[in-house]
Formats: sequence, C-alpha cells, structure tokens
Amino acid sequence: MVSLKPNTIPHIVIVGSGFGGLKAAQALAKAAVHVTLLDRHNYHLFQPLLYQVATAGVSPDEIAYPVHAIFRRQKNLEFRLAEVSGFDPANRRLFTSAGELGYDALILAVGSTTNFFELDEVEKNALKLKHLEDAEAIRNHILQQVELAVQEPDLALRRARLTFVVAGGGPTGVETAGALSELMRLVLHKDYAHLDPTEIRILLLEAADRLIPVFSPRLSAKAFSALVKKGVEVRFNTPVSSYDGTRVTLKSGEMIAARTLIWAAGMRASPLLQRLGTPLEAQGRVKVLPTLQVPEHPEIFAIGDAVYLEDSQGRSLPQLAPVAMQQGEAAAHNALSYLAGGPLQPFVYKDPGNLATIGRNQAVASLWGLELSGFVAWFLWVAVHILRLIGFRSRILVMIEWIRDYLFYNGAVLIISNPVLDNPGPFKKP
Amino acid sequence: MVSLKPNTIPHIVIVGSGFGGLKAAQALAKAAVHVTLLDRHNYHLFQPLLYQVATAGVSPDEIAYPVHAIFRRQKNLEFRLAEVSGFDPANRRLFTSAGELGYDALILAVGSTTNFFELDEVEKNALKLKHLEDAEAIRNHILQQVELAVQEPDLALRRARLTFVVAGGGPTGVETAGALSELMRLVLHKDYAHLDPTEIRILLLEAADRLIPVFSPRLSAKAFSALVKKGVEVRFNTPVSSYDGTRVTLKSGEMIAARTLIWAAGMRASPLLQRLGTPLEAQGRVKVLPTLQVPEHPEIFAIGDAVYLEDSQGRSLPQLAPVAMQQGEAAAHNALSYLAGGPLQPFVYKDPGNLATIGRNQAVASLWGLELSGFVAWFLWVAVHILRLIGFRSRILVMIEWIRDYLFYNGAVLIISNPVLDNPGPFKKP
Repeated sequence: MVSLKPNTIPHIVIVGSGFGGLKAAQALAKAAVHVTLLDRHNYHLFQPLLYQVATAGVSPDEIAYPVHAIFRRQKNLEFRLAEVSGFDPANRRLFTSAGELGYDALILAVGSTTNFFELDEVEKNALKLKHLEDAEAIRNHILQQVELAVQEPDLALRRARLTFVVAGGGPTGVETAGALSELMRLVLHKDYAHLDPTEIRILLLEAADRLIPVFSPRLSAKAFSALVKKGVEVRFNTPVSSYDGTRVTLKSGEMIAARTLIWAAGMRASPLLQRLGTPLEAQGRVKVLPTLQVPEHPEIFAIGDAVYLEDSQGRSLPQLAPVAMQQGEAAAHNALSYLAGGPLQPFVYKDPGNLATIGRNQAVASLWGLELSGFVAWFLWVAVHILRLIGFRSRILVMIEWIRDYLFYNGAVLIISNPVLDNPGPFKKP
Repeated sequence: MVSLKPNTIPHIVIVGSGFGGLKAAQALAKAAVHVTLLDRHNYHLFQPLLYQVATAGVSPDEIAYPVHAIFRRQKNLEFRLAEVSGFDPANRRLFTSAGELGYDALILAVGSTTNFFELDEVEKNALKLKHLEDAEAIRNHILQQVELAVQEPDLALRRARLTFVVAGGGPTGVETAGALSELMRLVLHKDYAHLDPTEIRILLLEAADRLIPVFSPRLSAKAFSALVKKGVEVRFNTPVSSYDGTRVTLKSGEMIAARTLIWAAGMRASPLLQRLGTPLEAQGRVKVLPTLQVPEHPEIFAIGDAVYLEDSQGRSLPQLAPVAMQQGEAAAHNALSYLAGGPLQPFVYKDPGNLATIGRNQAVASLWGLELSGFVAWFLWVAVHILRLIGFRSRILVMIEWIRDYLFYNGAVLIISNPVLDNPGPFKKP
C-alpha cells in the first residue's frame, strides 16, 4: 500500500482508449486524482461497426470519435497522443513516444491484435480487420478487385478476383461475409452492368464445426442458414494453412484461387504486454488477479482483451466489449481503493447477452434469457449499436446511412482511396 | 476526316473524370458512339470543397462520388479504372495500366498538378492540396501538430508547431487560410484546454500584391480585410524560396519557424501531356485550336486545366471548373461533328462569375455584373456548391455537416488517420 503524502493528488495513467480504457477514465471523472489517458490514435474506435467500413457500408470517420471531444468536460483528465514503448514497474514509470511518464496507478487497456497463428505467408498476404486503416484497406482492395474484374477478359483470373474468402466463423467473420454478400449482390450489381453475379464467390472458412461459438448450437445453425441464403459458401472443419496472395491453401491440401483473404480467425493480446516482464497466458494475455491487478505489481491493473481471467465456473471470460467495459469500471474503482489503502473488490462479469448481425434484416441474439433470430434480432442489433455510438455526429450520420441503405439498397462509400494500378493486362476492345 | 465504315460504332475515349471529362461524357449520352471514360481513381472529386477536407470540415467521401454511380444509366459508356502511360497518335492508340486501347476520337481532360516552380526543397517538405489523399494528409498533419503542441513544454518548438503557413493568395490559399483560422479558434479551442490561442499563427504569403486576382481590386481588398479580421497574417510581395520542414525561407532571406507549409501557389498541367509529342505552352499546357483540337491531331481534343486557349481579347482562359465544364461539352459536340465529317465550332467561354469563401459567413462573389461580399456572398457560395454536388448522399450529408457546423461551431472530422509518433520529447509531468 502506498501512503499518500498530504496535498499530493495521485496520478492514474490509462493506456488505451478502447471500450475498457474509456470506461475506466469516465469512472474516474469525480475522483480526486489526476488522469492521463494515452493512445496512439486520437480517437476511440467503435469496433463493432468496423466490418461495415470494410464492406463500404459506413465512412471511417462515422465510427471514430475524437478522444478530446469525449472528455471535453472531464477536467481531471489529460489525453496524450503517444505510443507506449516500455515499462519500469520498479520506479512506476512508462516509456512513451512522448517521453517518460510517472504514475501512482496504471490501468492497461491495450487490447488485442490479429492472431495469425504463426502462418507467416497468411500474415504477409491476407487482409486483417482490427484498426480503422485495416478496414479502409479492405474496402479499397475489394472495390479494386471488382473494378479490375469487369475489365478482365480471362475467365479464371476474373473469377479469382471475384472470389472473396473470409477465414474465421466468429462474429467478425460472419458479419463480414454477410455484409460482403450484400455489397456484391445488392449494391455493386447496380453500378457494374458487366458484373456477372454467378462469377462471384464468397466463402467463409471455419476451422471448428460451427459458427459464433459464444451462441448456442441452435443460434449457430440459424446464422449458418442465414448466410447460406445470402449465397455465402460456409465450410466447417476447414483450417487455412497458407496464402500466397493468389491461392488460399487449406490444411487438406485443397487450393482456392482468390485475390482476397480476410483473416478473422483469431486474436492475441497486444505484444506490448511482453515488455511488462510478467508471465503471459495463451494468446499473450496477462493472467490477472480477480481484482484485475497484475501479480507482483499491485499498482498495475489490466483489463479487456489483453487479460486472462476465469469466471466462477473456471471458464475464460470472452474478449468482448461488454467484458472490457465492466472491467474498466471495476479497475478504476479498485485503483482508487488501492491508492486510498482500502479493500479491493474481485471482478464479477454480468453477461448482457450477445448480438451478431448477418446482414440486412438478419441477426442472431441471445439476451435476457431469450434466443432471437431474424428481423427482431436485427432490429435489436441496430438499436443497441446506434444507442452505444458515442457522439451526436456519429449517431445521426450512421442512422441516416442505415435508413438510406435500408430504403435504397444503396452502398455508401464506394471510394477506392488508394488504387494500385500496377496491374497491366489486355484491354478488352470495346 | 475519317470515313466511317457502315455498321461501325465510333469509339470516343475520354481521359479524366474531373469536371471537364464528366461533362464531355454526359454530353455524349445520346450519341451513337461508344464512350470509354478512364481515370486512375474510381470517383469524381468535387475539388471546390477539397480545402474543407484539409481543414476537417467535411469527410473525404462526402466530396468524392463513384463514377460508376454517376453513369449508372448511361448505357453507351464504360468506365475503366486505369492510368494512361503513353500515346500512339499515329495509330490512334493509348497505353494504359490496363493494356492498350484504340479510339476514333480522344478527349484529354487530364487536369493539373501542383506547380512548385522547381523549388525542390519545398516540393519535398511542403503539403500540397490537389487530390483527396493530399487533403487528408493535411488534416492529419495539422491535427497532429496541435496534439504534439499541447504536450510540448518548449515554447519555441510549441510555437513552430502552431505556426501554419499557406503559400499562395489565390482562391485555394484564401479559402484554406480562412478555414484554418476557424478550425483553430472556433473548433479546436473547445477540445484543447491547454491550447493558448495567442501561440497560434496562420500566415498567408502571396508573391504578388493582392489576393485572388480573378476578382476586382475592390473584392481583393474585401477578402484581405475579412482574413485579417479572422487573425490571418496576410503578407504581399512575399515569395517563398525554400522550406526544410522546420523553417520557411522567404526570398528576402527572412525565416519563419513553422512545421506546416501548405503550398497553394501555383499549378501546372498534368505531366502526362509531355508524352503527347506536341509543343507545350507555359505551365506545360497544350495550346489547342479554338475548336479544342490538338494541332496536327484533329481527332484529339484537350480541355480544362491542361489547355492553353486565349479568349477574343487575347487573354488566357483561367484554370477553373466552369471553363473545364463548358469545354467538355464543346469538345464532345466537336468530336461528334469530326467523326461525322461535319463542321466544328470554335469554343466561346461564357463567364458565370466567381465565388470564393473566406470562412463562416464570409465570401466574395462577382457574378451577374454584381460584386458581393460578406454574408450574402457566403450564402450564395453555399447554395451554389450544395446544388452542384453530385449525388443524393453528398448533398444531404454536406448540408447536415454545414448546418451543424453553423449551429454548433463544431468541427467534424478531427481524426488523425495516420499518426506519426516517432517524435520523442520530454513529457510534461502532470
């Protein structure tokens, strides 16, 4: 326990402005502490809608909200645009791109990154979907494949450009595959008269035997049949072993010619945690005490995707926004108790349920003890996500986008912001 | 004259989907020709609002509209995402990133690029404002300078980060300087409690002795006083001679410490024209015949910023959107006449007047024989630009942005989409 010197305001540093870091910072709003929030981006990213940026549904800035604006009224907080490069726990100091920084308590909300499971070729050639830049890169890539396909006379090459493989049947993979199908079949067909829908393939490859395992097998089956109705080819027990940018190689040895592989098959904790000097669990996560403290460093708390913690039944808590948010609040309160020398509370997760969308009018939901699918689940998904969106601008704009999408089946952001035109080929003589 | 073979539909190729190329393509909608429109981007950029993207006023996709959507109903047109790399006028062929392409008539609407007047250091270190990527890069850079300034303890370095120099007193320079001042003083001050407005400098440097020379001296003076009221330091007869990324060197030898130089001091025709094999005029422009034909190549027409053409008084036509649009229509009609063996019309420019904005509530306008300034001119500017914006989405979204900006003084897109955090410095201990 620290003994606070009189007249010294304790300094709490929070690393990461994702769902967990944001909640922790907000929970400290009325505390007599000084809070520094660090992130290498100046915005909070609303990750549940990232797949919509990737599939041209919404604009990148519609799901990114400046941290300064979120904390405009929180006078005890300073935001710093900086990247953390290392730790000195013995002296309670952080190394950052903006210099060293001392703290009395530290809350690590550093999140996760894509896990390629050491498949180097996949890592090199596949597209990932974690940051805003990734989503924009996927959008640019997909739209460019379509542009190049319509001017491609060679059938095999044209089909390869129009084959979109998504690896991973979790929420992100399912949402992305569903939205991709709608982008192709409902949006782009209007603008590309020469696009033959029968030449387009969207594959969702899952290594295990069902989709979105956080749901019951019944809802997994619903998600599966909804995707199949959308024309997505879903294959189970189909792990990917390599990808050279033109052919996806499956573990079975089968090859699929495809110019697009979106990797949504796993995540691991931020590699920054390796510099903490504590042993890490599976996926590079820190195993924290029930109080969310890092063992041996009672003044360091860790939350969210970066953390390994079991519930009362010994199951690992899932890497989901609600977990991160509840942990953010809990860590903030425990950090204050710690600084005041009071007792710390163990974290207990209250599951608010799960929601995943499969596209226009289709979602699966398990909440309040109910299992929902179809339009009702979709409507719930829309309502929950619009309400959760931070800030006037985003809420209104996303709502307008969605209403317009819904009414006009009209994709929004069909802009290739970074075309790569080094791809000479025969020009179809008109 | 070509003698058309019976049953052969002539092929007109248009290079460039800017204002001129778009108008030319639209003017051919009902003609019995096949039209191929080429551009290296898949969108039409509404350039008059580019400075608003650079100053975080609107989102990049709000001023970019997919070419496929614009021509959804024009059945005689195909769009190709491709970059032109060379010409073979003798055989009426184009070389592109998507292979070779033959034509019966060619309309070059290749536009202009930034002119650095061979100031290599300026070209290397200054920001330009021509493409969508440029505008986004300026926004990212400016917002990052502010982020880094508020955590910078050294006064001189902090001031350098908060000194924004705009070179060039044409419409783009004036609009950018005015909007920058509003971004700093009306928008960012709300989110950055530690930002001292007295440390912010915005300079507009003009090599000649007045602003926006397409206007009368009276309106130039109005623009000048409006900028001064916004706190912009306007300096005349002040050419820039170099910029190393930290100090702007003036021709007088004076140096200004600034981490931002936005170069809006000139443009030159697209370098692609150098491959045409015809002699070029000042700024690399093709001197065309009054019929917009390229001398020695009657089947090649050139329009817009890439063209040098004098009016009946021997004055060079300005490089402005209305000129490009009127020439696009004229070139389309002349190309059809040429292919049909009919007579070609000389191009006559009808000046619709000029408009330039200096920020919220302030603009200068000269049209219908009137000279307007202040709110009336600004209102006209807003009305004209919203009406001109192509497409439902852009119009509605930009209007919402503007109404919200107007009501709440609230900047929209304060997202640094590509932060560069390699800038270690002492961290202010809170």
